[in-house]
Formats: sequence, structure tokens, C-alpha cells
Amino acid sequence: MSENKEIITTELSELGEFGLINKLTKDLKLINKQSIKGVGDDAAVLNYNSEQIVVTTDLLLEGVHFNLAYTPLMHLGYKAVTVNISDIAAMNAKPRQILVSFAVSNRFGLEAIEELYKGIHIACKDYGVDLVGGDTSSSVKGLFISITAIGGVEKENVVYRSGANVKDILCVTGDLGSAYMGLQLLERENKIYKSDPLIQPDLSGYDYLLQRQLRPQARVDIINYFKENGIVPTSMIDISDGLSSEAIHLSINSDKGCRIFEDKIPIADQTIELANEFGLEPLICALNGGEDYELLFSVKPSDFQKIKSNPDITAIGYFTEKEEGMNLEVSNGKIIPLNSQGWNAFLNP
Amino acid sequence: MSENKEIITTELSELGEFGLINKLTKDLKLINKQSIKGVGDDAAVLNYNSEQIVVTTDLLLEGVHFNLAYTPLMHLGYKAVTVNISDIAAMNAKPRQILVSFAVSNRFGLEAIEELYKGIHIACKDYGVDLVGGDTSSSVKGLFISITAIGGVEKENVVYRSGANVKDILCVTGDLGSAYMGLQLLERENKIYKSDPLIQPDLSGYDYLLQRQLRPQARVDIINYFKENGIVPTSMIDISDGLSSEAIHLSINSDKGCRIFEDKIPIADQTIELANEFGLEPLICALNGGEDYELLFSVKPSDFQKIKSNPDITAIGYFTEKEEGMNLEVSNGKIIPLNSQGWNAFLNP
Repeated sequence: MSENKEIITTELSELGEFGLINKLTKDLKLINKQSIKGVGDDAAVLNYNSEQIVVTTDLLLEGVHFNLAYTPLMHLGYKAVTVNISDIAAMNAKPRQILVSFAVSNRFGLEAIEELYKGIHIACKDYGVDLVGGDTSSSVKGLFISITAIGGVEKENVVYRSGANVKDILCVTGDLGSAYMGLQLLERENKIYKSDPLIQPDLSGYDYLLQRQLRPQARVDIINYFKENGIVPTSMIDISDGLSSEAIHLSINSDKGCRIFEDKIPIADQTIELANEFGLEPLICALNGGEDYELLFSVKPSDFQKIKSNPDITAIGYFTEKEEGMNLEVSNGKIIPLNSQGWNAFLNP
Repeated sequence: MSENKEIITTELSELGEFGLINKLTKDLKLINKQSIKGVGDDAAVLNYNSEQIVVTTDLLLEGVHFNLAYTPLMHLGYKAVTVNISDIAAMNAKPRQILVSFAVSNRFGLEAIEELYKGIHIACKDYGVDLVGGDTSSSVKGLFISITAIGGVEKENVVYRSGANVKDILCVTGDLGSAYMGLQLLERENKIYKSDPLIQPDLSGYDYLLQRQLRPQARVDIINYFKENGIVPTSMIDISDGLSSEAIHLSINSDKGCRIFEDKIPIADQTIELANEFGLEPLICALNGGEDYELLFSVKPSDFQKIKSNPDITAIGYFTEKEEGMNLEVSNGKIIPLNSQGWNAFLNP
């Protein structure tokens, strides 16, 4: 499982920074008309004359955000882009450009960085974004990745976390908790492998969970769907820290309360199955698992008709007056506050 | 000299990510009309309706780009912003926004991060930019800073590295080599301090060199001067790796040759004095020292009248046909190729 770890046949120091950048970006073609000038000057030049620009940045650090023992570098590159594109989508914007910076120790050779960039390039193609800049450096230890993503959206269509109104329907895309269970599976198998390298990891039957953890998709498709169907959500956020945390963000930023129904939360069969095997509550995985990169958003009740036929969108609750608090209604009708300490303890054992 | 190193009275884990971000950004006021929404959503929202946008990003890593034994965290924060603003200035653009990401090990407490941000906030004020986003993380080891800067410039005024023509005058702002000598001084005194902590560092008389190394200024003032005087350089780059390397960049990108005159290169008296003390050639420090963050640019001969009265700008040479190569004419009239191996060996001993 640790085949990525030391594949050095070409030392980065042989190439130098400019040789490396040239190697990694020489086949780049700019695809967005807003990308005027990409890699190769002091800064990239962009043109967004009729739109608002949205811009976001995220760090990924080895040993904190990923473990190279079970994360293929190509998937890591793809995921690093996804995490940022997901933030652009959460503003209801179309992603257009990224800047990629990384620092690596001398443990990594050219081939490792090329694997990372292979994933980055595939993600650029999938999301239709241009790689227009970045920075490279050596590090004392480990791999650091910092990506900035830029997107555009018509002024009137920007969606903040703060626009939810009472009675707006709270919706979520895809299903929740699966990326978290994928991580649990990878960590279990990695522990077994470390204790006895002759035991091959048993990951069969859980392809979906692994894909959700290793190669998540940003929901740009949903943003396109909104546009095609004339829907502008009243509030939106992407789910990186779990449903509970993100619903609290929307509620606090919108100065509202919310109610979520346990039995409406979409959880995949594989997630339920593996959670049971691990002795975990699937609901807790969905509420606090994180890394789903699905979108959590609210729409006006009058817009709900337009989206309820989309099989990728599930209504899970609604916004209330602030005084009613942020609550989960579980199957037996009991109401549990969303910011319950129980969930936090689970997250930070 | 190592007073920054372990000042922890408030653990970052007590605050949590949102508490920390809130603490570091609560007094932020957006000052640019292009900054629509800053910290606090999935992405920042910017509006640049009548301009091109330029965007750049730079990494700074402890142990690679800075040594906290002699770098006050406040200065480090200021410098991390400067490095990026300098790239925006090198496109002839006005800096407007930055996104700041950092990762820290548990060696750093809130007070250390607040010092870092104090420098970042002062830089934002000095350069007139808004801090509109970023990311924070823990790191396994060391401090890691990644900044993205965004600026704007009228379409017709963007200056690339590639626009120099034969006979264009090559100019540089300020003086060169001083930041490099500041670094030599700090490293010498740090070595002495490490060998005997009772010996106090002797940095007296070299304030200018220290300031150039620890708190360099991006030449936004020169960009404003260009604008006020109706000058658009034909090519421009900021000097981060030394005059020699940057002149080569402009020449190659413009597909031209260049000639630089040794006796025209501006070098400060303190630089010459300390270089002599260290047994270094001041010229070599200016050519390859790096971290000057001055601007190297070319103007049409007809524009030269407009700038030659500016005491902060020095003409140091001119562009030639490509076939003539990239050369330095030293005092005795001898011609030395700029990409001489001698310089590289100096940089990478």
C-alpha cells in the first residue's frame, strides 16, 4: 500500500524550478476566454468583465489531510483541485482558473510530482478550469499543497451562506457519510498492513466508499442544473466538515434556526453496511463525517417544485425562526440540538 | 535572538479554527470597492468590471525561506505579503486583495500567530489591499505560509516579461544586493549566538541592510509613478532571484539580447562596505543576491526622458538583437555573458 512513498528516478534538483514548471505545464492550453495569460509571468492575467469573481484557497498537508500510505498521488492531485472547486460551486459560480503551489522534500522525485500533476490535469479537464499559476519549493519534510481557485458568476446570482429565510427548504446533494467510511476502511487496512505487510488489504465490495474518499467530485453539475432551471438558492455551503457543522453555518450566517429530519438524510447502502461492521451509527457518520463535498443549500418553497424531481437532490428539512434553534428530529420524534456535545466528542475523541 | 520560538500562552487548539479566524480577522474592514465580500463564506467575491485581473501566489516555508531564529514574526508576515504584492506590481497592476493561508505546528501559540498577522495587517494597510480569505491548518512540523494576491489593471496597461524591443532602455528601481548582505549579516550573528548565547549580536550600523532583508517593500510607488506620468514599460519583472536571473528572463521572454553596464548598477554604500568585510564582490551580490523586490523594466527610448529625473530609477543597460546575447560590460570594458556558470556556482555552493 505504500508504493508511492519513494519513487525517485529523477531528482528534482537536477531539473531546477524552471525546468520542473516547464515539464509540468508545457502541454497546458487555456480553455476559458477569461484566461488571458497563464503560467510564465509574475502573475496570471484574467478578464471577467461582466461577472463577479469568486476566489478561494485551501491547504492540504501530508500527515494532516492525507496519508500517502494509502492515497495514490494522482488521486491526491485530483482531490486537491476538487476541494477548491467545491468552494467555488458553493457560491453558485462557474470555476474557471486554479493556481497550484506545492513544496516537497527530497523524498519525492520528478515521477511522484508528475503523478500528482496527472491528477491535477484530469481535474482541470473534468471541471473545465485553466491552471494559470503557482509556486514550487522544497520542504524540510513532507508534501504541502496549496491551491487557489477562481470562478465567475453574474452579480445577481451569487449565493452566500447568509440568505436563508424562514420556511426555505434545506436540501442536500448526493449522499452523506460515505467519504468518512471510505477513510475508516483505508485506515483499518493500513493498520493491518503495517502490522503484517504480507496481509493484502481487503477493500473489495466498497469501491463506492473508496472513490468517495480518494476521488470526490465537486458538484459543478448541480450549479449547471440550477442555471438551466432558473433556480438561485437562497443560501449554500459545501459539506467539508459534515452536515451538522455546515447546517449550523448556514443557520448562524442567515440568523435563522433549522430543523433537519433524520429519516430524510441520504445515506448510501454501503455506508450503512460498513458503519454497522465498524460498530458506528450511520447517522453520526452523515452528520459529522466530513469530506463529502456535496452541496447543502436552501430554496424558497416556491422553487421547490423545480428541483424535487432531481434524483441527486434531497430535501432534508427547513429553516425556522432563530428562536427555535438548530435541531435534528430523529425517527422516534425526539428533537436533538444539532450542536450537541455528543457529536463534537465523536469528532475529537 | 530566538525569542519568537516558543511563546505559547494560548494553545490554538483551545480556540479552534473558527475562533482563530475570527480573532485574526475581526477588525478587518474592506477598503477596495472591488472587494464585495471577504472572509466568512466559501469564497471571497470580487468585482473588476473595467479591468483585467492579475493573480499570483507564493509559498514561504520555515527552514527553506526563513529562519525564525532571526526573523521576527511580524516582519515575516509583512514580507510574505510584500513578496506577492511585488509580483502584482511587476504586471503594472494595482494590488487589491490577498488570501492568506498558513499551517503551524503545536510549537506556535495564538500570540505567535497574532504577531504574524500584525505584520500582515500592516502590510495590507501600507499596500492598500484587503485580506479576503485563506485557510488555516495544523502542520506536523514548522510554519508554512501561502499567500495569493490579486490586482487590477486597464487592459492596455498590462506589462508582461515579453514586450522588450531592441534599443529599449533597461532600468532598475532602488539598489541591489542589500537584502542579500542583510541575510549574510543575520546568519553570521546567528552562528555566533548559537556557539555562545552570551555574545550579543552586533548588528549596529547596518540598519538599512537588515530592513532590506527583514522588511522589504514592494515598489507599488513606482507603479503609481508610471501611471501619473503616462509611462507603460515595454517589459517588467520583479527582482526576487537577483538582477542576472531576471534580466535573462526578460531577454528570453522578449526574444532579445541585452547589455548591462557594471558601473551603472546601483549598489548602496552599506552593501559595498559589508561585502568587503565579508570578502565578497559587491557586484556579485547585486547580480545574484536576490530578495531585492525591486523592479527591472524596459522603456522605449522616447519614454526615457520622462523617467530619468526620478532618483529611484537607474538606467543600467539596453536590449539588443537576440544574436548579441545577454551580457555584462564590466569596468575594464570586458564583456561577460550574464548566464556565466561563475554566478550559478556562487548561488549554489
